[in-house]
Amino acid sequence: MATLKDVAAECGLTVTTVSRVLNNRGYISDETRKKVYEAMAKLNYRPNEVARSLSKKTTNTIGVIVPHIRHPYFAEMISNIENAASKHGYKIILCNSKGRNNKEKEYLDMCTSNRVAGIILFSGSVAVQEFTDSNIALVTVERFVENGTAAVECDNKQGGELAAQHLIDCGCKRLLHVSGILNNSMPADDRALGFIEVCEKNGVFYKVVATNMGQYNSLDYHDMLEGALEYDEEIDGVFASSDLIASQILQVCSKLGKRVPEDIKIVGFDDVMISQITNPPISTIHQPIKEMAEAAVDMVITASEGKTVPKRTLLPVTLVKREST
Amino acid sequence: MATLKDVAAECGLTVTTVSRVLNNRGYISDETRKKVYEAMAKLNYRPNEVARSLSKKTTNTIGVIVPHIRHPYFAEMISNIENAASKHGYKIILCNSKGRNNKEKEYLDMCTSNRVAGIILFSGSVAVQEFTDSNIALVTVERFVENGTAAVECDNKQGGELAAQHLIDCGCKRLLHVSGILNNSMPADDRALGFIEVCEKNGVFYKVVATNMGQYNSLDYHDMLEGALEYDEEIDGVFASSDLIASQILQVCSKLGKRVPEDIKIVGFDDVMISQITNPPISTIHQPIKEMAEAAVDMVITASEGKTVPKRTLLPVTLVKREST
Repeated sequence: MATLKDVAAECGLTVTTVSRVLNNRGYISDETRKKVYEAMAKLNYRPNEVARSLSKKTTNTIGVIVPHIRHPYFAEMISNIENAASKHGYKIILCNSKGRNNKEKEYLDMCTSNRVAGIILFSGSVAVQEFTDSNIALVTVERFVENGTAAVECDNKQGGELAAQHLIDCGCKRLLHVSGILNNSMPADDRALGFIEVCEKNGVFYKVVATNMGQYNSLDYHDMLEGALEYDEEIDGVFASSDLIASQILQVCSKLGKRVPEDIKIVGFDDVMISQITNPPISTIHQPIKEMAEAAVDMVITASEGKTVPKRTLLPVTLVKREST
Repeated sequence: MATLKDVAAECGLTVTTVSRVLNNRGYISDETRKKVYEAMAKLNYRPNEVARSLSKKTTNTIGVIVPHIRHPYFAEMISNIENAASKHGYKIILCNSKGRNNKEKEYLDMCTSNRVAGIILFSGSVAVQEFTDSNIALVTVERFVENGTAAVECDNKQGGELAAQHLIDCGCKRLLHVSGILNNSMPADDRALGFIEVCEKNGVFYKVVATNMGQYNSLDYHDMLEGALEYDEEIDGVFASSDLIASQILQVCSKLGKRVPEDIKIVGFDDVMISQITNPPISTIHQPIKEMAEAAVDMVITASEGKTVPKRTLLPVTLVKREST
């Protein structure tokens, strides 16, 4: 690969002059500038970002650590993060922790060694107490970390409230909430709180069942959903804590001969693509994924410049009515 | 952040000795080694990968350029690529070209400037004639590029054959193929060839309709699918060139009052998660995504070490029967 020296030799100038053209430093005549650019094009020269990063002591890179790339929620998030980062001239290193403690720790170290400007960490199942390097901005999304720089969340409690109220408004008398993984103390747990509050205020019977880590990893909720719906046959409204779970409730209902929305109404959470491609499409709580991604990227960059960012940012959710209610 | 110098000062040794411990070079006593590791732990020292990369003139990084991160096929691919790369001690920089010519070119340059070991480029809609830097390994997946290092594909023609034969075996008399974007000369075009060949051999009526770029970008195929099924009401079997399209055919059938699989049978392509979460689940052609991802990563790394890799690698596909046929 052509170096700065090769470019200098090609156009008969010194390395210093070529470097000044490249970095737009000092006075350079149009003729010299033209010469340098022509030589660069001829030799197919590409500036060495690695060298530049070493002298700047940081890189234009953001580490993004998610538990499951293939989960539609994270795929959507990653897409929006990449988009926002690219607009700021940043690139992303993508890491799949698979919800494993050691993997997550490994990736945090790898990102640090690679001098990323900051890290965006998505809700996982493991603790990051070990991550104490305060030189690197750590923004969490839908996850609380004791020593993180900033946390971005959607209003999960409001989401649970909206879902319960919508099902009640649709005439449901007996509600079920299929929650995410409990006992991990995640912001998403607040969805159940909002749901319960509204059910109690309205005097409506409700039940909450929790999914487990195995289901979260395999993305397969069929058996537990079938069990829950068979155990209480009078359930007429379900609030699922993700669209992926909601799509599987649709399948289980069909298997059990229950019509959606006639016999049972379903509300999901996330508003990712699958809520639109099921039959019927799923009413859901819209997470402002794009806005959350943009906020996380803005904050990582701002914090990496040594500026102060808000400790917690809470974005509102909305109800999207489709054909499952 | 602690430097090598800080570590040396902490344990009262020279930078050279500390560096030898770190790189496992020459004879080091256990006592010295222990001292250095203790000082590193105390100062929370992380080796600087940027400096290391600069001296090695390359990085343990693979650039991955896809047209749509949120498309379930690419989300699945990215997940498998990250997994395979991580096993080899490589990290990935993820780039979303959105099928735009200028974006793809920009990312190719960015990857080059960042001295990636190689690039994995996924089928997009744009040409990369401009990418002539032969120093960087360029492996394409489901895409042919004149000056690429290696191409990984699944047996698209076989997939089309399997799909048509399965529909005919199920008793279908009038077939429709909804193909991907034609006139781009992509490996996926061979799906139509295989489909047509089997229909003609069996004397079965068939029709092919092509999607367009706008639909590929919006991931919304409803209008064109409704048009195609209404235009010829006797269609009783459809082969869609992706599971995402197949899921939308299910919705259109439901809207038109056609039962699947009783009135119309559907076969998708890809075998990504959505083929399992629709109602009914979709029979599909399984692309060996995991194996394709592993092959692409192996080849990028092997080629970056200056070794020879096969110019073209073709992996077999299989039919997965589910409830839509």
